[in-house]
Amino acid sequence: MIMRALIISLLSVGTIAAPPVMAAAADEPIQPIEAAKPKNENMVELGKMLFFDPRLSKSGFISCNSCHNLSMGGSDNLPSSIGHKWHQGPINSPTVLNSSMNLAQFWDGRAKTLKDQAGGPIANPGEMAFSHELAVGVLQSIPQYRNRFKEVFGSDKIDIGMVTDAIAAFEETLVTPDSRFDKWLKGDKAAINQTEREGYNLFKDAGCTGCHNGAAVGGASFQKMGVMEPYKTKSKAEGRFAITGKDADRMMFKVPTLRNIELTYPYFHDGAAASLEDAVNTMGRLQLGRNFTKDENAKIVAFLKTLTGKQPQFLIPILPPSTKETPKPKPFDD
Amino acid sequence: MIMRALIISLLSVGTIAAPPVMAAAADEPIQPIEAAKPKNENMVELGKMLFFDPRLSKSGFISCNSCHNLSMGGSDNLPSSIGHKWHQGPINSPTVLNSSMNLAQFWDGRAKTLKDQAGGPIANPGEMAFSHELAVGVLQSIPQYRNRFKEVFGSDKIDIGMVTDAIAAFEETLVTPDSRFDKWLKGDKAAINQTEREGYNLFKDAGCTGCHNGAAVGGASFQKMGVMEPYKTKSKAEGRFAITGKDADRMMFKVPTLRNIELTYPYFHDGAAASLEDAVNTMGRLQLGRNFTKDENAKIVAFLKTLTGKQPQFLIPILPPSTKETPKPKPFDD
Repeated sequence: MIMRALIISLLSVGTIAAPPVMAAAADEPIQPIEAAKPKNENMVELGKMLFFDPRLSKSGFISCNSCHNLSMGGSDNLPSSIGHKWHQGPINSPTVLNSSMNLAQFWDGRAKTLKDQAGGPIANPGEMAFSHELAVGVLQSIPQYRNRFKEVFGSDKIDIGMVTDAIAAFEETLVTPDSRFDKWLKGDKAAINQTEREGYNLFKDAGCTGCHNGAAVGGASFQKMGVMEPYKTKSKAEGRFAITGKDADRMMFKVPTLRNIELTYPYFHDGAAASLEDAVNTMGRLQLGRNFTKDENAKIVAFLKTLTGKQPQFLIPILPPSTKETPKPKPFDD
Repeated sequence: MIMRALIISLLSVGTIAAPPVMAAAADEPIQPIEAAKPKNENMVELGKMLFFDPRLSKSGFISCNSCHNLSMGGSDNLPSSIGHKWHQGPINSPTVLNSSMNLAQFWDGRAKTLKDQAGGPIANPGEMAFSHELAVGVLQSIPQYRNRFKEVFGSDKIDIGMVTDAIAAFEETLVTPDSRFDKWLKGDKAAINQTEREGYNLFKDAGCTGCHNGAAVGGASFQKMGVMEPYKTKSKAEGRFAITGKDADRMMFKVPTLRNIELTYPYFHDGAAASLEDAVNTMGRLQLGRNFTKDENAKIVAFLKTLTGKQPQFLIPILPPSTKETPKPKPFDD
């Protein structure tokens, strides 16, 4: 009986010990993210192939992965992207990692969903410069793609909705759990050090979590770039204004996720901040009217680097060859 | 005793039965290829990262994998490649698959080894448009690269020889065993069908194996493009002549491997043959003075498609982030 009582007692301690850890995380403005649980493995695999297939572009050279490079934090690490015929894009390529958690897609939120987003670059003359019809025609000419689409969607005829569904299904798997910060949130107090912890406190105290909160540490709202003073930039992007035409939406951009921010330089919609130190300084001054000391800046940067999660690990896709019927890429045509 | 005698007899039959299979393969002008046995796993892993790292280019956009895409048979499936600022390359990008088996690298064989080759595109103004010094500077600025180079080469200082050694070590792993044809060569008579077998016989009888032989089904000699009649092309490439200056070397190109030829379209040094059917017809006429019938052509093409081997399977590399010290890519500078 003593033994049993002891066991029950130990179990109770176990049961009681757990909640405070969870409660601590629940009280924080940032929440851990969990690994993706793909609903349809075949659709994800097809989406991965499409994500890496440059035949969705006019040139046959540019794939989704060109600007959302999954070897480099799901971004291209350039201020603005390179598109068809080396066209200089108007805006910084946002990371595809954890993008399923955004309230909308693109910096100006003009696509509600990943599926809506996926069709954009394919048909954008400055990006992949193709059309949905031509992209579908390429896929339809390749028996191995036809078989896979049939398997996933039950149809002999491919359409752009299936293409973007599959790409979105793959992108939904691109979440990055198990960052050191998430481990800390879940109760592993040794997962971040004293400096990083102080950086997090500063991040909260200064008000950064007003916009950068939730599991994605951003992505949940549109906010004005340049609250305390106007943001000076050469970029012509005007944010939500381009969508709504309302003056109040001028320079309103989607708050970017800070997950994996160490990997997704350079920063801001114009890619003007080359380093995290720059970005933190500018954000403090423009959004919060606060000049961080060098020491504060370093601590916040140290905290931000704890947000680097486990990068998606997968086998490189092997793409099925084109056939005699496949329309040829036209890299050098006007 | 009867039982033991029977067992010995069966064993003997087994021993006797094996050699003919091996002998059959040994008699053939084409030999099976075997999976790579990497000597230094850490060097291969580093080489894989470098192969996928666009920071070895001036733009930060073009990696080895851009034109030797391992999702697409180690090629770009374009007549000629796209380089820095969308520069149109002068020649078709040869596959990197099984390239370790070539007698030399590039179509004109100007690099003896994979290591020698790897440095070429990095510094070619029309390809990656960088310099060896700048590429090494980028890598040296990234602690995770420094650590890996130290681990592999035992040195704190990275040099271009280490970079190309590592890339070559990775490329040496990119062999494609287990094609259906190799299975047939090794004795699995059901691995190829009657049409494919007839195609192989035609391929031998017509004399294709004069140049396309050995384990790589090519890659072992330089031959003149246009033996029976001159090859008509818009390409200015003149083959070995560009290296030796000897008239006899005009239009002498390295015989390409036919391994994975189904995946490495379009064909020839100018990428002018879009389909295998075209390529087989042109080769028959120009090199052998033979006009294949439609039926013969189809059989040879069917045989060639049995040369598609197991593609290299590996996890996509995760690249370490740049630092404040890392020189910035210059995609749009002149």
